[in-house]
Amino acid sequence: MPNGAQALMQTLADAGIEVCFTNPGTSEMHFVAALDDEPRMRAVLALFEGVATGAADGYARMADKPAASLLHLGCGLGNGLANLHNARKGKVPVVNIVGDHATYHQPLDAQLQSDIETVARNVSPNFVRSSRRTEDLCRDAVDAIAAAVGPPGQVATLILPADVSWGEGGQPASPPTAPDPESADEKAVNAVAEAIRSGGKTALLLGGRALREGALREAARIAAHSGVKIFSEVFPTRLERGAGRPPVERIAYLAELATLQLSAYDHLVLVDAKEPVSFFAYPGKPSELVPDSCKVHTLCDPAQDSKASLERLATALGADQAEPELQQAGRPDRPRGRLSAEKVCKAVGHLLPERAIIVDEANTSGLMLPVMTAGAPAHDLLTLTGGAIGQSLPNAIGAAIACPDRPVLALVGDGSAMYTNQALWTMARENLDITVVVLANAAYSILNVELERVGARDRGGEKARAQLDLTGPKLDFARMAQGMGVHAVRADTAEDFCQAMEYAFGQPGPHLIEAVIPESLNRTKRRVLPWLLRSLPHMPKSMARALKRKLAP
Amino acid sequence: MPNGAQALMQTLADAGIEVCFTNPGTSEMHFVAALDDEPRMRAVLALFEGVATGAADGYARMADKPAASLLHLGCGLGNGLANLHNARKGKVPVVNIVGDHATYHQPLDAQLQSDIETVARNVSPNFVRSSRRTEDLCRDAVDAIAAAVGPPGQVATLILPADVSWGEGGQPASPPTAPDPESADEKAVNAVAEAIRSGGKTALLLGGRALREGALREAARIAAHSGVKIFSEVFPTRLERGAGRPPVERIAYLAELATLQLSAYDHLVLVDAKEPVSFFAYPGKPSELVPDSCKVHTLCDPAQDSKASLERLATALGADQAEPELQQAGRPDRPRGRLSAEKVCKAVGHLLPERAIIVDEANTSGLMLPVMTAGAPAHDLLTLTGGAIGQSLPNAIGAAIACPDRPVLALVGDGSAMYTNQALWTMARENLDITVVVLANAAYSILNVELERVGARDRGGEKARAQLDLTGPKLDFARMAQGMGVHAVRADTAEDFCQAMEYAFGQPGPHLIEAVIPESLNRTKRRVLPWLLRSLPHMPKSMARALKRKLAP
Repeated sequence: MPNGAQALMQTLADAGIEVCFTNPGTSEMHFVAALDDEPRMRAVLALFEGVATGAADGYARMADKPAASLLHLGCGLGNGLANLHNARKGKVPVVNIVGDHATYHQPLDAQLQSDIETVARNVSPNFVRSSRRTEDLCRDAVDAIAAAVGPPGQVATLILPADVSWGEGGQPASPPTAPDPESADEKAVNAVAEAIRSGGKTALLLGGRALREGALREAARIAAHSGVKIFSEVFPTRLERGAGRPPVERIAYLAELATLQLSAYDHLVLVDAKEPVSFFAYPGKPSELVPDSCKVHTLCDPAQDSKASLERLATALGADQAEPELQQAGRPDRPRGRLSAEKVCKAVGHLLPERAIIVDEANTSGLMLPVMTAGAPAHDLLTLTGGAIGQSLPNAIGAAIACPDRPVLALVGDGSAMYTNQALWTMARENLDITVVVLANAAYSILNVELERVGARDRGGEKARAQLDLTGPKLDFARMAQGMGVHAVRADTAEDFCQAMEYAFGQPGPHLIEAVIPESLNRTKRRVLPWLLRSLPHMPKSMARALKRKLAP
Repeated sequence: MPNGAQALMQTLADAGIEVCFTNPGTSEMHFVAALDDEPRMRAVLALFEGVATGAADGYARMADKPAASLLHLGCGLGNGLANLHNARKGKVPVVNIVGDHATYHQPLDAQLQSDIETVARNVSPNFVRSSRRTEDLCRDAVDAIAAAVGPPGQVATLILPADVSWGEGGQPASPPTAPDPESADEKAVNAVAEAIRSGGKTALLLGGRALREGALREAARIAAHSGVKIFSEVFPTRLERGAGRPPVERIAYLAELATLQLSAYDHLVLVDAKEPVSFFAYPGKPSELVPDSCKVHTLCDPAQDSKASLERLATALGADQAEPELQQAGRPDRPRGRLSAEKVCKAVGHLLPERAIIVDEANTSGLMLPVMTAGAPAHDLLTLTGGAIGQSLPNAIGAAIACPDRPVLALVGDGSAMYTNQALWTMARENLDITVVVLANAAYSILNVELERVGARDRGGEKARAQLDLTGPKLDFARMAQGMGVHAVRADTAEDFCQAMEYAFGQPGPHLIEAVIPESLNRTKRRVLPWLLRSLPHMPKSMARALKRKLAP
């Protein structure tokens, strides 16, 4: 009869969980040993827990099924929390296994003893369970898997005491049966259809799984037929876009711009999305972005099937035979001259390979990315769903493992890249086809913008500015990456950058390109604004003028 | 009238809090701006929250007063949790400030919204408070400071919503008055004195602040007079040791050895220490290390004054005029030949500068360190109090900032160094006098030992072993450090290593030395054991023989 860990391993594999992203310690040694009993399970070691959890997030976004993470007690969970948060906010399924001391050891308050459950509740508000007996472990695991899968997906935390793991008498359990999600009910469909037919200006706000190609096509049919606008939530979990797919405009990160995007509409229809609110609060500015005059409708929620719901809506509107508008293929020219953030985005658009997965955490430097890649070959875009930086490098690992035949491109700011830089080692160890572009402007640029937006710039002086400044010393990401076994170069011209991209896309294994860009870029509102305006190509000219008036100094 | 952040800054400074270790985000921008209003406050930027919290821990261990940490919402707190855990377990005061969304923004469930308090309870079980009004903020802060200072010291978490920070009408508050800790009461003193006089073999187990020189001298007087043994807890918060100070034997990390250390005693007296338990549980082995036949007494607890308590005990025993045994000065010879973990420890003993602070997270590689540095010039030793790895580099930052005139030496295993490698950048930025030695054996060596100790080695195969193996690719720490602006070299001979140490100690600013040591070192019990035995020089020969019999294959 297997021990607890062996039975658990079999139960996970039976449920289709094939990858475990790990950073184990002593209390997880029997789980680790059981890896060799289960050929279906691949274990991917990370040197920091945030890498493991971020990889589990990226994996599930692309595989559409959960991976397991394996963490070491409360401190390991703490280290992995930020990327579990991103998974939670993105409604991504993760079976989060946290090793614990043996049950009888816990009352002794040894060095690593802490309250794991209280930490886990932050990311797993609906499912935290500490398994107490070996014979119950696999049933607990099946409950965790069922909770993780949903729909909607979520982070389910299973706490695994060492003696439950090593105890004899493990009993493998059958996989849970996932319920088929329902589509929107007739009442919701009719209410939305009526709003659209009423003639008021209407926008659909798509989020979650409604940003996959199938649902997008249904939304685009409705748009073509009824003239509604299609928006994407600001930070999509996974957006399928590019040539041949319906284009969709993302809600802007900056509340000032998002308000303008939404200002023209009488009806906003939520499709697996929540009502947009500003990312942060700002003194004297509203946090809610939808104007009072706009009526908000919900077509379907994250537990429902958004594609089927949109199909029903299309049918109700007579739009089911309409031809959706699809993005024309087209790439920007090859950039030349001194490198800038805009040229990096341009080069990405110029060179993006077929079937790429882009993980975008480029923050201020990536503002031009949506425009520059709009007509690039069809690709997936994974973004910072929960706002917890340090997501992109780990996400890229998971995406590359889920889709070994697809190239992965991670775009990341220098500040963000530091949080989980250990991901580079795992990329090298697993020889993953990932190209990492670090946009190095030697600043927390976004905070330079934010310092002003919250009205604190005039109050702060040298000490405040120093908190946002990453010079002295400047980070050398190429060298750091080389130290972790990843081929890496620096580029400060567009020519060098394009050449490095071509090399990286052409050669197997991971590559890092440090794109050295001027730090002055986002230093002031004056400089940021033109960028922002250009990044919203669908914005009417009158709105752009209003925006300029509103935000100009 | 100041805003909330400005009043808070003044209140912190008035209470003697002079350093804030930060990794801020948008919600902390007014706090950041207020730095320029308070010349007494030094802000030290970290590129990862675990660096900020570990630095706050190291600072308070050396400064004997808290620093503040500044973290960004629940995710930032998660990233900082492991090193706050170490501070909690070490009873180290930290005023942990966690920025939050504006109070009115919280119900909107924006991207970064999460339950901060539930995470904070893990490290701040006794004090978590979310300040709700600007005019109450400074009183809340004073309560947090009072809770942090104790005694005993603890992590007090103050959650700071953005609007409480930016709101006008901040009211600075007066510092808390710290109560003088009491010493042990007469009953406890007499009970312990009676046990010692009874003739049964007695050991004092010192922990916490009882490991400072003053308390140690009192304990050593008692030892000299009454023949009691003096032990230190296994992972001291701060142990004052070296030539001219009373020697003290640390309880071993391995439960098998600790049991043997404690087996001879009829009485164990706790002095600001808890009853020792094994670090982890092991199948079939007891977690409690004190034999049933040994009676446990408590002289004083962490809230009490251990030095005064020991003085009272010495007086009760008539030992107050006894001459304490003090460690003779003496250094090992300069090591030669191919580098090994033992030679690294030997070189440290040979070269340790005067008044050094050693932060020891060398794990398996550092087993010989206590022996090799026993007679080195008087120094402080900071250790991994909570077992959450990634402590040493951040701790070293805090220690160096608390004691700018003292050299800091951080010893760290390669596995551990990765968790908070971002600390290197802060060392360079602040030009701190820190020498980092990374003991690089390209393995989670301790887990190779633990895999066997938990009885899982025979079950595991290639996949399990791969989880403990850090080759493929091997990490190049010198290159990584150079990428973060720290002068760094690799050494694989004792000669090169000594030369690099001499250079590092002689030149200002941070230096990293990657000590390349054979990874075979700890691969098997057979190889580990002789090391362990030699690492306990005070062990009687009969006990060593018994140990060999017990643990030999």
